[in-house]
Amino acid sequence: MSNIRHALTVKRADDFAAWYQEVISAADMAEESGVRGCMVIKPWGYGIWERVQYLLDQRIKDTGHDNCYFPIFIPLSNFEREAEHVDGFAKEMAVVTHHRLITNGKGRLVPDPEAKLEEPLVVRPTSETIIGDAMARWVQSWRDLPLKLNQWANVVRWEMRTRMFLRTSEFLWQEGHTAHDGELEAKEHTLRMLEVYRACAEEDLAMPVIAGEKPENERFPGAVETWSIEAMMQDGKALQAGTSHYLGTNFSEAAGIKFQNQDGDQELCHTTSWGVSTRMIGGVIMTHGDDDGLRVPPTIAPWQVVILPMLRGKDEAADAAIVDYCDSLKDSLKGTVACGEKVRVMVDKSHGKAAAKRWDWVRKGAPVVVEVGSRDMDNGVVSLLRRDALWAESGKPDFHAPSKHDAAEQIPAMLEEIQTNLFAEAQERRDANITRDITTMDQLADFYNDNTQYPGWVEVQWSKPTGAALEQVVEQLKGLKLTIRNVPMDAAPIDQPCIFTGDTAVERIYVARAY
Amino acid sequence: MSNIRHALTVKRADDFAAWYQEVISAADMAEESGVRGCMVIKPWGYGIWERVQYLLDQRIKDTGHDNCYFPIFIPLSNFEREAEHVDGFAKEMAVVTHHRLITNGKGRLVPDPEAKLEEPLVVRPTSETIIGDAMARWVQSWRDLPLKLNQWANVVRWEMRTRMFLRTSEFLWQEGHTAHDGELEAKEHTLRMLEVYRACAEEDLAMPVIAGEKPENERFPGAVETWSIEAMMQDGKALQAGTSHYLGTNFSEAAGIKFQNQDGDQELCHTTSWGVSTRMIGGVIMTHGDDDGLRVPPTIAPWQVVILPMLRGKDEAADAAIVDYCDSLKDSLKGTVACGEKVRVMVDKSHGKAAAKRWDWVRKGAPVVVEVGSRDMDNGVVSLLRRDALWAESGKPDFHAPSKHDAAEQIPAMLEEIQTNLFAEAQERRDANITRDITTMDQLADFYNDNTQYPGWVEVQWSKPTGAALEQVVEQLKGLKLTIRNVPMDAAPIDQPCIFTGDTAVERIYVARAY
Repeated sequence: MSNIRHALTVKRADDFAAWYQEVISAADMAEESGVRGCMVIKPWGYGIWERVQYLLDQRIKDTGHDNCYFPIFIPLSNFEREAEHVDGFAKEMAVVTHHRLITNGKGRLVPDPEAKLEEPLVVRPTSETIIGDAMARWVQSWRDLPLKLNQWANVVRWEMRTRMFLRTSEFLWQEGHTAHDGELEAKEHTLRMLEVYRACAEEDLAMPVIAGEKPENERFPGAVETWSIEAMMQDGKALQAGTSHYLGTNFSEAAGIKFQNQDGDQELCHTTSWGVSTRMIGGVIMTHGDDDGLRVPPTIAPWQVVILPMLRGKDEAADAAIVDYCDSLKDSLKGTVACGEKVRVMVDKSHGKAAAKRWDWVRKGAPVVVEVGSRDMDNGVVSLLRRDALWAESGKPDFHAPSKHDAAEQIPAMLEEIQTNLFAEAQERRDANITRDITTMDQLADFYNDNTQYPGWVEVQWSKPTGAALEQVVEQLKGLKLTIRNVPMDAAPIDQPCIFTGDTAVERIYVARAY
Repeated sequence: MSNIRHALTVKRADDFAAWYQEVISAADMAEESGVRGCMVIKPWGYGIWERVQYLLDQRIKDTGHDNCYFPIFIPLSNFEREAEHVDGFAKEMAVVTHHRLITNGKGRLVPDPEAKLEEPLVVRPTSETIIGDAMARWVQSWRDLPLKLNQWANVVRWEMRTRMFLRTSEFLWQEGHTAHDGELEAKEHTLRMLEVYRACAEEDLAMPVIAGEKPENERFPGAVETWSIEAMMQDGKALQAGTSHYLGTNFSEAAGIKFQNQDGDQELCHTTSWGVSTRMIGGVIMTHGDDDGLRVPPTIAPWQVVILPMLRGKDEAADAAIVDYCDSLKDSLKGTVACGEKVRVMVDKSHGKAAAKRWDWVRKGAPVVVEVGSRDMDNGVVSLLRRDALWAESGKPDFHAPSKHDAAEQIPAMLEEIQTNLFAEAQERRDANITRDITTMDQLADFYNDNTQYPGWVEVQWSKPTGAALEQVVEQLKGLKLTIRNVPMDAAPIDQPCIFTGDTAVERIYVARAY
């Protein structure tokens, strides 16, 4: 079985963007739908999303939030109330104007002019304004606070340039919304949820992130503070993988979310919102994928172990014995635990040649693939491939051949090792690609001009300019196709001046190209 | 604690429709959103839906389906391809015509005339046409069949008269879509999924249903056969709680879903689709609710056991001891299993008086409520209320006082008993309200004119007229506000003529008023 046979047609080093698209298609995760900017999420891609949902949902419930569901349609007037918010979203929303179709003279379907809505409805791009209405009804007294809600939903932002998982007109996400009795608690909660996202990204997705505050110009429309987790992709670009916003009293004021405090006075609530989306899946691909396809971290793999019976299709009894052998390994594994949950194992009995199926599962990134042929069975062993260590030095697939009994014993620990390895590998690469010795704009320009391929991030120091001064910095960076990613939580400045203004630096920040 | 104190203001017998609305509000399940025809599903209502989702999702996966996700927007041209299908839906769809808003001269937001879509998009009312497109891409050969897909999604049908959970413009559902290599397998699958729905309704929701085929006039637009499960509500009306459709080759032809058979010839696939929605929750309310509020069957209760510490708020140490006592009961219960899963138990430590909280949980329908006051603690007991047997003959709440140890041992079995009791109670009521001795239209008219309140269903025999003859029957029934619910699976005719035509009867059918 040669190396060429299965490899993708595009390598990461040759064309990262084309490689990304090929992985999505080779791993059968998603495809274009034919509807502008919308994708179809196929079973393997959706299965990974279901795992992320399940794990993150636990984390969100463990921090005291209840799930609920709010309407997909938002009246225009809701957007008019919060001027900054609408400015941020008005340019990219799907607008429903009619509620009926009729067939016109040419036999084509058209919106019925008789069924025009009095007030057009927007397909939610995010739900602060409609959930704010509900909070205003639900909160009366300090006893009702904190109010901690979450919803899993689809949202629509009319994107001009789309890329599967990373930027689609419709996407799936969770959006959390909370109301608190004061600034302190609301700010603490904003950071608590950022920490939940960090833990989910690093522990579940094995994707190292840097948590920090976004600069003023990158805030969510209407937010007082926006925090993010930023992950480095293998091309050195940053991916904003989740955000958490402290909204102050902006949305409370617009929607009238008030409570009677313990002294009997009316106060505005302080609110937060935070979300992560199917974009995370794009992050997984660009963090863990290799030139053979995707590698799914075991914790979020729909199937962690795929067992392939190598059937000949000639001798039915012999084939049945192999299937039984596979099923018995599955049964042993089903009782075992890895990464805190029962091992997810399947025997792939689908049509098709076993060797072709092996490479399908390699491209999909199943963490462990186990093959069983008649010779394996006769020897009481299995042929085992680890997706994170696929190739032997010989250039051949690095099969191991434990006994069936040993395989059932070893695989759970192996899955945990793969989870740890994928994280360590990504973290090592990330850390090796952060440059810290740049102190002037000239150096910064040289750095990005000299390193056209995969230059990584640069950590610099700044004086935290605001308003027009910040705009100027943003423009300067734009010339290099760079953005400020965030101000990491624990990064006090060393004794260097601000790279942009020459003033005394007060913070360290990350600068990078980004998705 | 008097009976009056907690009862709803409306009793089922006095005004069933008003009672229904009051339960939804008193159990804090959902509310009107302010957006036409759309509701907000609140945590308790959504928690029940999450349980239904979880259980039904297992059943759908166990029958070999993969979850995936398709776009919410469907181009008009998709609807033009299947004429019957569009006739059924075109009257009630939300149409997106613009992708941007601008502020007009009066400072109001309006759709931007520059951002009009070339082809308007429909917000999916159901996804046969868009999933058909994908199936046409994915199916090439008999080896790709059967293709078994499912999605959990929101859909929109512009309903004129809405009622929470039962009929809302936006609702949540799952829709399954499968493609097969022939009529036989597709028809078998249609019935397999109907059986999955029956099992979910009866075993999980404790809601007895009658599974059968809908008459021709009630078929899903574009279907060859439509099957349903029908449940009887406490007012005697029928609720169609789930449907499964055999679509023949209608949608395959429209979308071009073809496969190469084993002889190398091209054939059209036979497809099916099937769905259940948040409407199920309305069925749970009207099946199990009583004059004290909702009663949630343990299998779908977000919390099966709610423990209420009766705190005095005077002596902190005494209160802390009560909370510890409650927590230790919770810990004992968390290790136990009922209805096949770990018992879901919570200690309600929220603000508010314990007695008021008790009635909140009664109205929400938590299966078991356990109260612990200082006297209970001193005696080593707990005060336990079963929601399905709330009142003693004395007219007082029927508290039991097992020891804490015994409570932890008894509650799992008690939960299973409640599940069984709720089903048995509903089934007994349903069976008692099916009338079978009506053989003429005059008798039928008299029956429904004489029994204006809660008349139940009538089982009659018919000759299965079609076309214009069926239309006539439908019109006759409409005069009595009746519809044909379905033809139950196992109901061969007895020796009586057709109630509508006098011809020889070939089937027995259910006739009823319906939601």
